[in-house]
Amino acid sequence: MPRDESDEPAILIMYSTAPPTTGHLQRLVEIGGHRDVVVADSEHRAMQTASRAEIILGHRYLWQVLPTAQRLAWVQSSAAGIDHLLVPDLFIRSPILTRCPIFGEVIAWHALAMALTLSRGLPGVGRTDEPVREVQPTELPRTAMIFGMGEIGQQLGRILVGMGVRVIGVNRSGIAGAGSFDTILKGEDSWEEFVHQVDLFFICCPATTENHKIIGANVLDHLPDSAILVNVGRGRVIDYEATIPHLKDGRISAGLDVLDGATDAEIKCLQSLPNVIYSRKTASFHPSRQERFERFVESQVQRFVVQQPLLHRVH
Amino acid sequence: MPRDESDEPAILIMYSTAPPTTGHLQRLVEIGGHRDVVVADSEHRAMQTASRAEIILGHRYLWQVLPTAQRLAWVQSSAAGIDHLLVPDLFIRSPILTRCPIFGEVIAWHALAMALTLSRGLPGVGRTDEPVREVQPTELPRTAMIFGMGEIGQQLGRILVGMGVRVIGVNRSGIAGAGSFDTILKGEDSWEEFVHQVDLFFICCPATTENHKIIGANVLDHLPDSAILVNVGRGRVIDYEATIPHLKDGRISAGLDVLDGATDAEIKCLQSLPNVIYSRKTASFHPSRQERFERFVESQVQRFVVQQPLLHRVH
Repeated sequence: MPRDESDEPAILIMYSTAPPTTGHLQRLVEIGGHRDVVVADSEHRAMQTASRAEIILGHRYLWQVLPTAQRLAWVQSSAAGIDHLLVPDLFIRSPILTRCPIFGEVIAWHALAMALTLSRGLPGVGRTDEPVREVQPTELPRTAMIFGMGEIGQQLGRILVGMGVRVIGVNRSGIAGAGSFDTILKGEDSWEEFVHQVDLFFICCPATTENHKIIGANVLDHLPDSAILVNVGRGRVIDYEATIPHLKDGRISAGLDVLDGATDAEIKCLQSLPNVIYSRKTASFHPSRQERFERFVESQVQRFVVQQPLLHRVH
Repeated sequence: MPRDESDEPAILIMYSTAPPTTGHLQRLVEIGGHRDVVVADSEHRAMQTASRAEIILGHRYLWQVLPTAQRLAWVQSSAAGIDHLLVPDLFIRSPILTRCPIFGEVIAWHALAMALTLSRGLPGVGRTDEPVREVQPTELPRTAMIFGMGEIGQQLGRILVGMGVRVIGVNRSGIAGAGSFDTILKGEDSWEEFVHQVDLFFICCPATTENHKIIGANVLDHLPDSAILVNVGRGRVIDYEATIPHLKDGRISAGLDVLDGATDAEIKCLQSLPNVIYSRKTASFHPSRQERFERFVESQVQRFVVQQPLLHRVH
């Protein structure tokens, strides 16, 4: 692998969602001072600059470059949840790791939109002359459970409480900001006892070893008829083997933005069901997404350069 | 037309949405005392009983029976908006006329669901393997205008205000209940000046001669890009000729529950557009709809029998 000829420290950009804009690159050059700004549009390009990367923005090839990134001081992820980045090499190198949780409100609206679409029977309201209705409207949702009370869960809770819905939040600590939840439960507590009251079940948490496939028969067997399951967190929180039969028989419906952890056969099955919407990780999409992301990253690089504390630091 | 042989006063039932349940008929017989309870499942059956109808529940064949319904004292419509019932014969007969506005909250949720579905680009998020996206997500809606501040408009305003959206309400009087609107405008005022600020434009009003085709170029030309038009009121409020070009070029999108007033060609065109949802007058549908409607009607008949004032009286 031929390395870069330069030995200047580098800001190595490896965004997953969209390439950096010209304006963003120009502003990073200005903010970064003596640092080179390098865009890794391939794994090969990322590896070439790995050894002099002081800052990594985005995480597309992070696992690959970590072993040779001996000058790495800071990784700014483009994701809100960084559970998937926590590999052993990251702890050995031990750079500062920061998240990007700025799209919590958009993702909360997306989760709500999926729930309301299913609740009003709008999927299947087609454009043909036939009055086809594959999904029936439900009763008005009165109670929601939100699994995970991070930025998304809190924004979603706040909106639902404002709409007059009773909101039960669940997380590991049993602690959350005021105003977003009517009831707060700790993950270890018997939150499952409340599931039979829940019309809308939202998953907004990262994947951990503890919550792997935690949503299965324990939840699905007890949700009332016509309940709606929405996942804008991580797919592997769901036990698909236990969940799919409940979706197949139409007893509940689901809006899924993520399907990581599902097998190809399970994904195919879910996509064939009229009472399932799969929005393909678009929950944070909106026209100003890239601009807002780039502005956030620039403000973080500015902080790094002047040695101010970085926002949303994980370790 | 052979008339009924009986001369007892009758409760004549002519529901449009679903036939009365057995339990409902039994309860009406009990409440109604000496009155016969007759279900008009056809215009012919309605005409047979017209001359002895004291109470008409529902309005399916109302126009047809009015000329011979000389004993008619009260008409309970099954609709919230009774603008379409106000025919000259009604004023000549002059029975009490009452509305059924009990589904305002459900219809408000339906309107919101259509807006959010379009805002998050969910129509066209299909179940195929192709990542087809016919409708792009918009920015988060910040300002809504609600045209009509009756039961639906007030419920919708209350929900949107709770969600953190700024809500501008417009009606004829410029007067509305507290808590549902940030700004209230009178229909005669220059409400059109505010349209350029509006991300979500909701029509929740009855059709009147004044508002016929009132939503046209005046609104559509000034709505910002990606704005969403939702109609859960009456179709003839919209000038389709002026509106369709704005929908065809994809600049705005629309969720329409009603299309009365549109020509067949216009309906066909609207149904072919990916950025238009047409939900076919299902905005009030929910599993307990019929039960709630029947219970409301029974409570009204009870009031009539004991000469208590009827609720939701129009005249």
